[in-house]
Amino acid sequence: MTAAQAADAPARRARRHEPGRRDRLVATTLDVIAEHGVAGTSHRAIARAADVPLGSLTYHFASLDALLAAAFTSHVDTVAPRFDERMQAAPDRDAVLECLVDHLTGDLLQSSRDLVLAVELYVAAARNPALRAVTQDWMSRSRRSLERHFDAVTARELDALVEGLVLHSALSTDPMDRDQIRHALARFAG
Amino acid sequence: MTAAQAADAPARRARRHEPGRRDRLVATTLDVIAEHGVAGTSHRAIARAADVPLGSLTYHFASLDALLAAAFTSHVDTVAPRFDERMQAAPDRDAVLECLVDHLTGDLLQSSRDLVLAVELYVAAARNPALRAVTQDWMSRSRRSLERHFDAVTARELDALVEGLVLHSALSTDPMDRDQIRHALARFAG
Repeated sequence: MTAAQAADAPARRARRHEPGRRDRLVATTLDVIAEHGVAGTSHRAIARAADVPLGSLTYHFASLDALLAAAFTSHVDTVAPRFDERMQAAPDRDAVLECLVDHLTGDLLQSSRDLVLAVELYVAAARNPALRAVTQDWMSRSRRSLERHFDAVTARELDALVEGLVLHSALSTDPMDRDQIRHALARFAG
Repeated sequence: MTAAQAADAPARRARRHEPGRRDRLVATTLDVIAEHGVAGTSHRAIARAADVPLGSLTYHFASLDALLAAAFTSHVDTVAPRFDERMQAAPDRDAVLECLVDHLTGDLLQSSRDLVLAVELYVAAARNPALRAVTQDWMSRSRRSLERHFDAVTARELDALVEGLVLHSALSTDPMDRDQIRHALARFAG
């Protein structure tokens, strides 16, 4: 044991029985993904960022895939209810349209962390089909939120349009403005 | 110089005046991105994969951003003309719709390399606004292809819908089938 490890030992001992460690490891994993990308995310990097022994991390999550799935699922668990609340609060179709415009110009485009986590998930799922359970779950939840106001087919199609509008706005140097976004959505939701 | 480097020297000398080295470095960069992700892409990794001295790579591309921009631009230069050819070949709206369905169920979903490179570009552009010049260029070219058959507003909106349908099909465990995709597109393109 080095002097630095010895000095650190009491803090580590105190955390050994840390309740909620699993949740903290998941949150740290999201931070590591947001900062370094999935490609820069490893058991070692997460253990270091969370200041836990590598063995504790592998005890909770045997594989990196399990850890990534848990982290992205927790991200979906944060953002999907926010969207559902907005959809639930809208009294009619006009209000839904404004809600979606707000969602597209506010929630999603003003948080670069949320944007980065979303596209990191897409890359991870493109490379690893096992993670498509997470993207599928996210889509299913968005569609159910939209089904509060639309039939299932319209909800599915509108969900795809919203996805495309988000990416094209976020990754453009000349993004669509509110009126242009409203016009596009109105083809489905008008 | 080690023995291995000495043995390698004639091959390296022969390539020193290699015409088209810049293009080869760009192609190698795309291969490295496809395999390791943007996060795993460095001057060092590319120089190694291309078997050129690091100095040659930095001579052609001073910054990693310049190299990523050149690599993703070359990817767009490959895929955008393929889409434009399809649009140009379609004689009427019905044919355009079938073309788009083919594009969505064929070109894009059957090449995991193209999908991975597209989402890697999105991640890179989400993290680094300088790369949004590349995503913007890609969008502009897709829209111009669609403008062969649609007004500018419809082309822009349809382009976003196609984007969303691609991602939602590629990253789903229960992707939309041809009829479902055609139905969504027909709202704009019918």
